[in-house]
Amino acid sequence: MFVYGVNFEQAKAQSQGVNVELIRGGENLTSKITAQVKDYKITKLLVDALGVESWNALVKQFPSEEMPEVNSSFVQALRAVKDKEEIELMREAGELTSEGMKVACETVKPGAKEYEVAAEIEYAMRKRGAGPTAFETIVASGACSAFPHGGCSGREIREGDLVVVDIGATLNYYCSDMTRTLVAGKPSEKQHKIYDIVKTAQKNAFKSIKAGALVADVDASARKVIEEAGYGDYFVHRLGHGVGLEVHEPPSLNPVSKDALVAGNVVTDEPGIYLPGFGGVRIEDTVLVQKDGGAKFTIGPYSLNGE
Amino acid sequence: MFVYGVNFEQAKAQSQGVNVELIRGGENLTSKITAQVKDYKITKLLVDALGVESWNALVKQFPSEEMPEVNSSFVQALRAVKDKEEIELMREAGELTSEGMKVACETVKPGAKEYEVAAEIEYAMRKRGAGPTAFETIVASGACSAFPHGGCSGREIREGDLVVVDIGATLNYYCSDMTRTLVAGKPSEKQHKIYDIVKTAQKNAFKSIKAGALVADVDASARKVIEEAGYGDYFVHRLGHGVGLEVHEPPSLNPVSKDALVAGNVVTDEPGIYLPGFGGVRIEDTVLVQKDGGAKFTIGPYSLNGE
Repeated sequence: MFVYGVNFEQAKAQSQGVNVELIRGGENLTSKITAQVKDYKITKLLVDALGVESWNALVKQFPSEEMPEVNSSFVQALRAVKDKEEIELMREAGELTSEGMKVACETVKPGAKEYEVAAEIEYAMRKRGAGPTAFETIVASGACSAFPHGGCSGREIREGDLVVVDIGATLNYYCSDMTRTLVAGKPSEKQHKIYDIVKTAQKNAFKSIKAGALVADVDASARKVIEEAGYGDYFVHRLGHGVGLEVHEPPSLNPVSKDALVAGNVVTDEPGIYLPGFGGVRIEDTVLVQKDGGAKFTIGPYSLNGE
Repeated sequence: MFVYGVNFEQAKAQSQGVNVELIRGGENLTSKITAQVKDYKITKLLVDALGVESWNALVKQFPSEEMPEVNSSFVQALRAVKDKEEIELMREAGELTSEGMKVACETVKPGAKEYEVAAEIEYAMRKRGAGPTAFETIVASGACSAFPHGGCSGREIREGDLVVVDIGATLNYYCSDMTRTLVAGKPSEKQHKIYDIVKTAQKNAFKSIKAGALVADVDASARKVIEEAGYGDYFVHRLGHGVGLEVHEPPSLNPVSKDALVAGNVVTDEPGIYLPGFGGVRIEDTVLVQKDGGAKFTIGPYSLNGE
């Protein structure tokens, strides 16, 4: 493990079974890697994340026939299947997230500001031992609920608003991801109608999740419900994504993938309908893929009043 | 602006003065860029962030002599100099961060868990209107305070511990960055000694900040204080970094850079001494570079008891 001075002592103290080597002044990560590749005649580099600048610096060091092959999907593939310890952490991260959602159901009210709701959610998760949030908390009310990444502003929630709450706690760097949609006050008939379609779609997809299922089929089992109800054009994203050390990682649950689910994958099931100007509804759980079906890591109400 | 369906409506609603174009099924960002480069004979691409996978996909589309030049420092250089509106946001982000640090000074006590302190800090910033934190809150106590990135765990703070608190609020995506080091209970003579060296170093560097100053000289004005006190080997990182939309961006304040500060840069001034096993001390402010000197965006006590 090559680390700069700023992290050297910590890397030595907190790693096991690896040599930790200091990158000294005048050296950098690229020069360290280059030396390894040359000294040990390494022909393949497994990359987790590499920017184009570092890549170009690396390429310059080698005649083109000696340039090692770079594979950036190997590490991702390893990470897509969680072991027992990872699953336990993600289960607990899901429980912390569910606690946060309980607080959301209590605090989404006419007059509350979006960021005030976020403050209460994050505080509840943190006080119970969660790490930093897995991503930027979304509390998107009114017209902004129609944007899948609708953010969290100083807007005051109004009576009758749809409010999309999309949150995730981490535990020991493992992420969770959960969405519920609420209405501040009494839902309208149309809000109920849209909600019930998304709820059915989400449930259908959940029932199709198991090891061996094609991700395109899982996506389709939600999408067809929304399409048959006439809202196919308003489900503007894939059904879900893998979750782990990052909140978005393989496998991707989309209509064009050829992948199949594998036991140990942890994925989101999150269909939505987004009507510009009217508002949006999304329901999302984080789900463990098992041999015979899915197991939810997140638990919360499936109703617009949060009960 | 090319965006996928998930963000299309939001991009149209929230952008000004650009054409927003949908990336449809079967297309991707690379195919969109490739088409533009070919149609308009674009010879230079300005890149903010680009992974090696996307880069390789792009390269494949062009005979080598037609490949456009890629420049990934242009956007960073633009961002390194803040305009009036950005400076106002960063000033406010600094005020929110300073409010969080007040809470840290009140809650760092023997018996408090590190994450409980983080919960109170983040809640205080959020409730006042801050966005998500600029980075993972650090509350590192005891031996972990000697790691510059010492994290935030479930450890209970003990009487006499050094506690490094490194926090940052965001406002409208602009970051702030601030560190104070506290002692839970009564500081020892050695803790006082180390603290005073870092405090003098930080102050010295602050006095050297102004437009035109070489960043290496600013770094040196802090580093020499620590070196002369005999702790040079324990100041294991650069003096500071630029701050903006990202918490780490140009300019880098390090000993080997040839850059000079420019009015409108916003940088951190954060020397530290880290003694393995004993603990660490870091003091950090976010500072605006002006014609005649620096102006601090973060305000807080320079003392081990937080007063």
